[in-house]
Order: sequence, then C-alpha cells, then structure tokens
Amino acid sequence: MTGREIDNLIKLLARLPGLGPRSARRAVLQMLKKPETLMMPLAQALEETARAMTNCSICGNVDVTDPCHICASHNRQRDMICVVEEVQDLWALERGSSFKGLYHVLGGTLSPLDGIGPEDLRIDQLVSRVKDTRASEVILATNLTVDGQTTAHYITERLLETGVKVTRLAHGVPVGGELDYLDDGTLTAALRARS
Amino acid sequence: MTGREIDNLIKLLARLPGLGPRSARRAVLQMLKKPETLMMPLAQALEETARAMTNCSICGNVDVTDPCHICASHNRQRDMICVVEEVQDLWALERGSSFKGLYHVLGGTLSPLDGIGPEDLRIDQLVSRVKDTRASEVILATNLTVDGQTTAHYITERLLETGVKVTRLAHGVPVGGELDYLDDGTLTAALRARS
Repeated sequence: MTGREIDNLIKLLARLPGLGPRSARRAVLQMLKKPETLMMPLAQALEETARAMTNCSICGNVDVTDPCHICASHNRQRDMICVVEEVQDLWALERGSSFKGLYHVLGGTLSPLDGIGPEDLRIDQLVSRVKDTRASEVILATNLTVDGQTTAHYITERLLETGVKVTRLAHGVPVGGELDYLDDGTLTAALRARS
Repeated sequence: MTGREIDNLIKLLARLPGLGPRSARRAVLQMLKKPETLMMPLAQALEETARAMTNCSICGNVDVTDPCHICASHNRQRDMICVVEEVQDLWALERGSSFKGLYHVLGGTLSPLDGIGPEDLRIDQLVSRVKDTRASEVILATNLTVDGQTTAHYITERLLETGVKVTRLAHGVPVGGELDYLDDGTLTAALRARS
C-alpha cells in the first residue's frame, strides 16, 4: 500500500509489544519526518545492540559487555546477590536504585507443568557463585506467584550447604503481582524491610 | 540503569508516538530475545528507509523511489488526481483500495493564524500538474475541518482556469473527523458517492 520498503518497516514495528499496525504507521510517519534525528540514530542503536548484545557470564543480565556493567562496576556491594527471575525484574530493581549489590538472573521459575526443572535455570551457577565469591547475603526477589515462591524455596534449600544468609523481599509486594509492574517506592520499601 | 547502549535504545524508542518509557522497555526486552529475527531486520529496514527516503517530485508522497511507487505504477488511472493534506491521508485512502487514480499531497492546509499561505503548500505544483497532464478530474479529499474546507475552496478557485472537473468526497465522512481515523468502508462509500 505504502511502498514495499515502508510497508516492511511498518510490519516489523507492528511486531513489537504495545504497537499494532496503526501505531506502527504513526511511528513510521513520525520517523519519516525526522530521518536524521530519530530514524538513523534508532537504526544504529538497534544494530549496535543486536550485534554486541550478550548474556553476562556471571549474572545472566543482558548487556553489550561481558561481564555486564553491573558486575563490572566498582561501586557495588559485591557480597550481596539479589536473585531475580528475568532481566526485566533486574531492570525494575535498578530503577528503584535502592539496591547496591549484584544480581543473579535465573531465566525463569521452576515449573513442573511446563517441564522446567532446576537444570533449566541458572541455579547451579548461583550455588557455585555464592561459594566462590563468599557472598554474605542472597536476597531472593522472585515474584510472589506460586512458581516464584516454589523456586525461592528450592533455592533456599540448595543454598543451605553454603551457609550464606538468605533473605526475601518483605511482604509489601502485592501477592500475585509482578516486580516489573511495581512502582519504585514499593520496591524500595520491600527491599528495606526484607526478612 | 540498564547499560548505556540499551538505555540509549530505550530512550530513542520512547520518543515514538504511542510508546512511553515502559512500553519502550518491553519492546527492547522482546527484541533482545530475538536479535536475529526482529532486531537486526528492524535496524536494516530503518537504515535503508532513512537513507533512501525521498519525497516524490510529482505527488509529494514519501517513498524510497522518486517518482513514488504510485506515480510510477502502470495500473493506475492517470487522469484522476486525489488531493490530500498529508501522507497519512494518502495511506488511509490506499488502505481502502477503492481509489485507483493518482494523488497529490499538499503538505498541510491553509491556516492564516499559523502563517501558512498557498505558497507553503504544493498548490502551484497541483495547478501546473493538472495543466501538463490534462487530468480529467481532481478529487479534493482534504479533511472536513475548517482549515481543510478553506483549502478545498481555495484550490477549487485556483483550478477554475484549467477547466478540470473538481469533486469532493461525499458527506459520509464525519464532520470534524480526520481521514486517517476512518474505517475503510466509510472511505470507500465516501469515494463512490463523491459529488
């Protein structure tokens, strides 16, 4: 309808979550008006990120460097590890900016019904990491869903042998909720009142 | 928060209409999971479009070729010219796919309050084009807003000297509405019942 190349661009954009065909068209129109200030920089940012993106071999975070910028930082408390299900949970906690330790991204939750067992998550790596780095505290920040809590239980058991202090986010996170949807204040409060 | 490069990408995406910081983050996360099938193709489509995009010297449409794919097509009725305000109106009519003629994009409407006069729109080009190509009909498809109707009036006067038949979209387009928001059926009906 709108030229093959532009049609293709609209179709690709419409595949992003939160964008449908109509909003993709509006986005493309907007970009066509600002090719130099928006379209080109966006193309370059996408290409660079797609080419350089990698998973941090220490914590599982997604970044363009390995180790990621958090694991590589000198301003973090390196003996605290906060365990999250997914990268978006890490991002949510970082937005709250009240946690200054390191992270460990599991890559999901235990889910027997979906056939996801401990070997599918980065749990062995967590146990080794806690031993190797002599971490003083592991904060379990899995979601307060059934699967998230099952996973937290399992990890607590697995970490028993290491003797590390294992804490959880305080009740303050609404039950059944997901970290990525919480406001920063609630996340900060839940971190402070961890038990 | 999420690494400088990824942060930059999120900020650029958040500038698109319809996307805020939260949906931009979700979009980036989605793309980071599919770098090869979504992120790279999108980067390439954006770059190619940004590099090749141009305004058709005949009709003012945006495309990667000049003349645009509509003006260059052999399957269009070349003596009918549909005059629209903006490129998105052209796209809307193309989606209805009931119009098989050519287009002329004005680039806006007359708006004395904003200091937009006839010389700021592609009206002189329209008059010359009608004369040069001996068009048999000009359909004025400006929006049914005050500015759109003023512009249609003005163009009708200007086209008097050419003797071309000037028609307008039928009343069927809701008054005060914008073409880009209409469903295809209404657009088709309005085209058929043009007067």
